[in-house]
Amino acid sequence: HHHDRRSVGIIGAPFSRGQSKAGVDQGPNVIRAAGLLHRLEQQGCAVKDYGNLTFEELDHDEPVGRVKRVRAVGSANQRLSKAVQDVKKDGHTAVVLGGDHSLGIGSIHGHAMAVGDLSVVWVDAHADINTPLTTPTGNIHGQSMSYVLRELQSKIPVLPNFSWLKPCVSAKDLVYIGLRDLDPAEHYILKLLGVKAFSMSEVDHLGVTRVMEETCDYLSAKVKKPIHLSYDIDVIDPSVTPATGTPVVGGLTYREGVYITEHLCQTGLLSVVDMVEVNPLRGQTEKDVESTVSTAVDVLLGCFGRRREGNHESDYSLPEP
Amino acid sequence: HHHDRRSVGIIGAPFSRGQSKAGVDQGPNVIRAAGLLHRLEQQGCAVKDYGNLTFEELDHDEPVGRVKRVRAVGSANQRLSKAVQDVKKDGHTAVVLGGDHSLGIGSIHGHAMAVGDLSVVWVDAHADINTPLTTPTGNIHGQSMSYVLRELQSKIPVLPNFSWLKPCVSAKDLVYIGLRDLDPAEHYILKLLGVKAFSMSEVDHLGVTRVMEETCDYLSAKVKKPIHLSYDIDVIDPSVTPATGTPVVGGLTYREGVYITEHLCQTGLLSVVDMVEVNPLRGQTEKDVESTVSTAVDVLLGCFGRRREGNHESDYSLPEP
Amino acid sequence: HHHDRRSVGIIGAPFSRGQSKAGVDQGPNVIRAAGLLHRLEQQGCAVKDYGNLTFEELDHDEPVGRVKRVRAVGSANQRLSKAVQDVKKDGHTAVVLGGDHSLGIGSIHGHAMAVGDLSVVWVDAHADINTPLTTPTGNIHGQSMSYVLRELQSKIPVLPNFSWLKPCVSAKDLVYIGLRDLDPAEHYILKLLGVKAFSMSEVDHLGVTRVMEETCDYLSAKVKKPIHLSYDIDVIDPSVTPATGTPVVGGLTYREGVYITEHLCQTGLLSVVDMVEVNPLRGQTEKDVESTVSTAVDVLLGCFGRRREGNHESDYSLPEP
Ligand SMILES: [Mn+2]
Ligand SMILES: [Mn+2]
Ligand SMILES: [Mn+2]
Ligand SMILES: [Mn+2]
Ligand SMILES: [Mn+2]
Ligand SMILES: [Mn+2]
Repeated sequence: HHHDRRSVGIIGAPFSRGQSKAGVDQGPNVIRAAGLLHRLEQQGCAVKDYGNLTFEELDHDEPVGRVKRVRAVGSANQRLSKAVQDVKKDGHTAVVLGGDHSLGIGSIHGHAMAVGDLSVVWVDAHADINTPLTTPTGNIHGQSMSYVLRELQSKIPVLPNFSWLKPCVSAKDLVYIGLRDLDPAEHYILKLLGVKAFSMSEVDHLGVTRVMEETCDYLSAKVKKPIHLSYDIDVIDPSVTPATGTPVVGGLTYREGVYITEHLCQTGLLSVVDMVEVNPLRGQTEKDVESTVSTAVDVLLGCFGRRREGNHESDYSLPEP
Repeated sequence: HHHDRRSVGIIGAPFSRGQSKAGVDQGPNVIRAAGLLHRLEQQGCAVKDYGNLTFEELDHDEPVGRVKRVRAVGSANQRLSKAVQDVKKDGHTAVVLGGDHSLGIGSIHGHAMAVGDLSVVWVDAHADINTPLTTPTGNIHGQSMSYVLRELQSKIPVLPNFSWLKPCVSAKDLVYIGLRDLDPAEHYILKLLGVKAFSMSEVDHLGVTRVMEETCDYLSAKVKKPIHLSYDIDVIDPSVTPATGTPVVGGLTYREGVYITEHLCQTGLLSVVDMVEVNPLRGQTEKDVESTVSTAVDVLLGCFGRRREGNHESDYSLPEP
Repeated sequence: HHHDRRSVGIIGAPFSRGQSKAGVDQGPNVIRAAGLLHRLEQQGCAVKDYGNLTFEELDHDEPVGRVKRVRAVGSANQRLSKAVQDVKKDGHTAVVLGGDHSLGIGSIHGHAMAVGDLSVVWVDAHADINTPLTTPTGNIHGQSMSYVLRELQSKIPVLPNFSWLKPCVSAKDLVYIGLRDLDPAEHYILKLLGVKAFSMSEVDHLGVTRVMEETCDYLSAKVKKPIHLSYDIDVIDPSVTPATGTPVVGGLTYREGVYITEHLCQTGLLSVVDMVEVNPLRGQTEKDVESTVSTAVDVLLGCFGRRREGNHESDYSLPEP
């Protein structure tokens, strides 16, 4: 019951162009300010902070079909992909602090470039799997998975600043947890591709314990691939994490949200973790923001060995009078 | 996984005389204003709104024994019974928007007149089964079930404006879910008649999944009868649905509250649904009211095919570039 | 399903020196003011209130090593131990209303003096098992269990005003429920002694139903000993019981908190119950305090026969018209 000595590389990605609400680019800094690095170190991790990526402002970024800010999103994700590859080459488990969930594109791509085939666990109220042709809003943070799935390649038009992207995930390697707000096209795609999905109905029906057992059984049925965990904070109930752009009632409890990462941590396969959609400007009170950010931190700590039963160093000895 | 084409007939019953707090008669309008009809149509239902019933003011309605406003309640429920029969004759699943839970009397009676024997699933913090002789408050919204149960007929005195009412439900066809605040007489009656009841202790012990399985097994053990779902919004925890007249701590979560109707929907037997005790004047803030009303809407949507995993039309096809 | 005629002796222990925040000494009075005695009587208990203990002010109570206010805590607990012994001699189930959790020392000691070997169920976010040499804060409310455990005797230095205390609980007779904030030394001790502990991870994994089954199986595997329930209100989630000195996110729901005592009540073995750490000055609003105190009352009512399905007297008969 001692600490694993995990090595963590942190990338800040203060990017918000995958959606339209101001503030989500402050995510990396508020999560750091809540003590993430210090607390990871306290629980025995070696932490390297790679700082925040910078993203260029684009003067002309008109919609392409329905899709908004394509060029900015394409360019930012290319940069993120490179950053994730660098962190993986340095031998760390990478943590990407978003920013909005369009960053999933570059994070997954960079991860796959570095390690090859991987499993994706997408923990989110939303499936984020609209194609550029089905998106009702045009925001790319609701389309990320469609860009990286091999099976959807023929449904995705050519988009400016996305030529670097190659689909790199197979539908059979993807598991969703926490879904409760899907567009019809998204539901169709999930059924068409046979994607494993635990919506909130399944979480209610099975309980989070069985959901995680089935998730891990499913992903490790053949080869054990590195796991990419893409955690959208809106999967947790808005009573706990209100400071996010698209809250949806009926979400995970804090306990379920943390249990998921405790369980995934124990697989030893976590290789990249995205924490996205924390938006301090969307809270109505200081308490709203604090609760959202501290939950995000606890979820991340759970990825790296924190256990609610406690921890102690293997060489601990009890003092005597 | 396509939509069932369900046909829904909506009756507004802005009635509040079964209890003493102002505002519950605004239930039908606030629930409609939250978009119920549009959202039912969006999920593939054919919806007909029968409008709001009107109820006569009675000049002389003195208590009869302990029971308050007997004549008003008797008259209103006779009218509601007729309205429910009309909606059933038109071939719809009926939705009764209360108003207080005394409306259960007329709603169940009208339902039974139209379809014969039925099952009742009473989802409520309270059993609403005091007799006119045991009621501690005199409010009929706490007595409804005793008026319609065959086995209690000998315990109910003759009451003015209730001569139209014939008991029409057998104790073996009744299931309670969510109980947590019973008077001693009510507890005695449940035990005396052997009524199937899942109090919050049982919900905690079994989980809502097994509660619903056992509910449906119990009700369909012999003949599958049409189901009358009488849903008192106070069954859900006051942290979620505070805008109601008699909130009780320790209620269902939003997710459990919705799961119940998702499960009942899948039986294909839902025939009448009451949604009662939404009282916009009982919320302390606008948010309280909004949360209560939107939860009531989501519960109703769950009765008519809404699933948290999403839905798509059976003829959907994915656009290609 | 009638009432057991339980006899309850209530001891107020308005003591706060086991920690440093003002207000927890108001616990006994606010819990009484919320109607505890009347409601216990309503559910068929015979209740005797032994009033509040008085504790002497000590002029010189400098820290001993790291440990703060040792003399005050030692003296107060000696007094409480005597009071618990008196209530047990009078034949009651004792309820100790704290005050802070350092009172667990005297309460358990007095209990053991009166009845001999006992089981302890410690329901708490914290293990309160630091020794005087490992405590990070010096507050004795975080050390109580180490003072009374036989196996830790060699780790506890001689402390002023504690010469009356003899360790009186074996590690195998202790069960923790609800843990989620342990210091490394505490985690080490629990593993060293093989203490049965259901942290919130286990509550999530097993569910509270199985936790309680396993707790009772474990405790009654050999001889059925009287149960000492020491209930720290901070075990419940701060969204429900915020008015406490050391709240920790991710706690029990109200329903789980009540279920625990409903289940323990049915063993018939509850012999002493501590309700501690209710601090009305720690709530930010009146509602915070009200929710905390009423939850504490409901937890206590659950210890003495309250069931959410209701109760009725065995000689109840239904009135006829
Ligand atoms: Mn997302
Ligand atoms: Mn989302
Ligand atoms: Mn009701
Ligand atoms: Mn009710
Ligand atoms: Mn404690
Ligand atoms: Mn505690």
